[in-house]
Amino acid sequence: MTSDDLFSLKIQAPDEEILRLSRERWDLVAKPVDGLGYFEGLIGRIAAMQGKLCPDIEKKALIIMCADNGIVNEGVSQCGQEVTYDVASLMGRKKSSVGVMTGNYPLDIFTYDVGINSDTSPEGVINRKVRKGTADFLKEPAMSRDECLEAVNTGIGAVRDLRERGFGILATGEMGIGNTTTATALLCAMTGALPGKVTGRGAGLKDDGLIRKIRVIEQGLKLYTGGRKASSRNEAFEALRCLGGLDIAALAGVYIGAAVYRIPVVIDGLISASAALCAERMVPGCRDYMIASHLGKEGAMSLVFEELELKPVIHADLSLGEGTGAVLLFPLLDMALELYLRGTSFSDTPIDRYERFDR
Amino acid sequence: MTSDDLFSLKIQAPDEEILRLSRERWDLVAKPVDGLGYFEGLIGRIAAMQGKLCPDIEKKALIIMCADNGIVNEGVSQCGQEVTYDVASLMGRKKSSVGVMTGNYPLDIFTYDVGINSDTSPEGVINRKVRKGTADFLKEPAMSRDECLEAVNTGIGAVRDLRERGFGILATGEMGIGNTTTATALLCAMTGALPGKVTGRGAGLKDDGLIRKIRVIEQGLKLYTGGRKASSRNEAFEALRCLGGLDIAALAGVYIGAAVYRIPVVIDGLISASAALCAERMVPGCRDYMIASHLGKEGAMSLVFEELELKPVIHADLSLGEGTGAVLLFPLLDMALELYLRGTSFSDTPIDRYERFDR
Repeated sequence: MTSDDLFSLKIQAPDEEILRLSRERWDLVAKPVDGLGYFEGLIGRIAAMQGKLCPDIEKKALIIMCADNGIVNEGVSQCGQEVTYDVASLMGRKKSSVGVMTGNYPLDIFTYDVGINSDTSPEGVINRKVRKGTADFLKEPAMSRDECLEAVNTGIGAVRDLRERGFGILATGEMGIGNTTTATALLCAMTGALPGKVTGRGAGLKDDGLIRKIRVIEQGLKLYTGGRKASSRNEAFEALRCLGGLDIAALAGVYIGAAVYRIPVVIDGLISASAALCAERMVPGCRDYMIASHLGKEGAMSLVFEELELKPVIHADLSLGEGTGAVLLFPLLDMALELYLRGTSFSDTPIDRYERFDR
Repeated sequence: MTSDDLFSLKIQAPDEEILRLSRERWDLVAKPVDGLGYFEGLIGRIAAMQGKLCPDIEKKALIIMCADNGIVNEGVSQCGQEVTYDVASLMGRKKSSVGVMTGNYPLDIFTYDVGINSDTSPEGVINRKVRKGTADFLKEPAMSRDECLEAVNTGIGAVRDLRERGFGILATGEMGIGNTTTATALLCAMTGALPGKVTGRGAGLKDDGLIRKIRVIEQGLKLYTGGRKASSRNEAFEALRCLGGLDIAALAGVYIGAAVYRIPVVIDGLISASAALCAERMVPGCRDYMIASHLGKEGAMSLVFEELELKPVIHADLSLGEGTGAVLLFPLLDMALELYLRGTSFSDTPIDRYERFDR
């Protein structure tokens, strides 16, 4: 896909009629009206995305995009770039945090190297390396237009493959030392938020590190946006290219692919949320195929979810990344869907339906 | 247990040393410091409750207490008492909402009839009927001291049985038409909250029903508390006896039993939260064995969790009851525990440990 293709892409909206029918179906289940709260609407949204009143989310995949960020040269992270490779190699063996957490849960994990700073990709990691880490954005744009596009296309292609293999829902994750810096910079570029207000400590910065991180983001914004909020599809792409990371670009591609192939996709933490917002800005309508999972420790996440009008249900101060928060949503969806699909209907009981008075 | 026994009961605190060791263990896992956020502390608390650094929550049970409430005579509910029996009989066949939701999840459900307004208990429901529903508390106290105590003892006994059968963690649920009224009245009696501020719509009251419900609670409080906040253990018991329900009394017993037998217990929605607060007021220290699951639609829940200093992680506007919110927490605990028990340690990787600077 060229950038022209990308900027002219139109997303088909989820099926409104199915959403309406899903509400009726929920109201037939023997339980108080709206008893399962937010999950009732969420299952309805998933049905509408898939275009099926009875959605199928049995096969689930987590896509993890890994890449390095040149900006770590500026001292914005507690640890060095080599950790990206090391954690990715744990991922390839299902030994990283998300792999261990879901060891007993039916989930397929696909880890991509889209830009780890290494000659080869770790075992078990899919090699789609665009380049060996981005440039330090205080020196030059993080990547070229072609590189950024290649990463986006990798994400779109990953979704196409999984869709063909019958996966019904996706979660997103990432690994890349320095990527709370790139994600926050991108977020500020897209929303006009002030770095001093929304920058967090990432995987654990002390006060001096946090101050340095804020300064770096401020300088980056000054270099590439002149303090102006990105308002066109191309400006969102440019913010991604200049300030973002290859992991974020590839994740943006995953969100775009999810909307194109009509498959629900679960956002994880700050980095994937930033990629999600960027996808929506580059290809409006993607948002309709996104599901928020958790509200993590990084304060900027609230900002993204307000912009996307999505509601995270898990409030647990997570800051792990890898998709750990996104996959926590899966078993909750399983239980909610089970009730939607197989709940006892009022008509099979002596109980009168509860009256709905608010719609 | 007599009321004297109950009021002199002392709870052994969870093991502080194990809590401390659990933090150390979390910090050895190859992930950012506190990466799993709230769940790290929660797994630590469970370890400390069980007195085992590696807690065992494999066998899980849901205890559902069902009972009728005389107060429905005052028109505080959209549906009639017979629905309690009907839903309980679905529960007995694993056909109620929580049974269907957890159809694919390893959970044992124990449904108790502690006061359904029927001669017999539905099939599959354990008969511990204290009386056929409470009295209308605007006419007389909901129950006698002996009846209230019998229900509390039933809850304590239920936990003892499950502990002996090797269950590692419990969730609580309830069914009883009218029990958001009794729960809210009890809550107001214990906290001094004003009914007009904290009363919700239960399973779906219109405006006129809501106003009636508030008036009923106000009158009940005037009758039994004279507007004074219950401050002693006996006053909490009296509030439970006069305004509460047999389901709430039995659930209070479950929380007390959980603390006595050192087994973690998960709170569900408003009714079980109200029972939890009452348990803590009757037997201080019970709170240490409680886990919040979700923040539901009924606004009064925030009040309880503030009083108990517990944090619900699932924010989904649930209002179903039956323990549906509590059981949603279980798969999240499974995943968090898996990482705690089997997470890759920094020492097995080339990665340096992240530095903890905040403790």
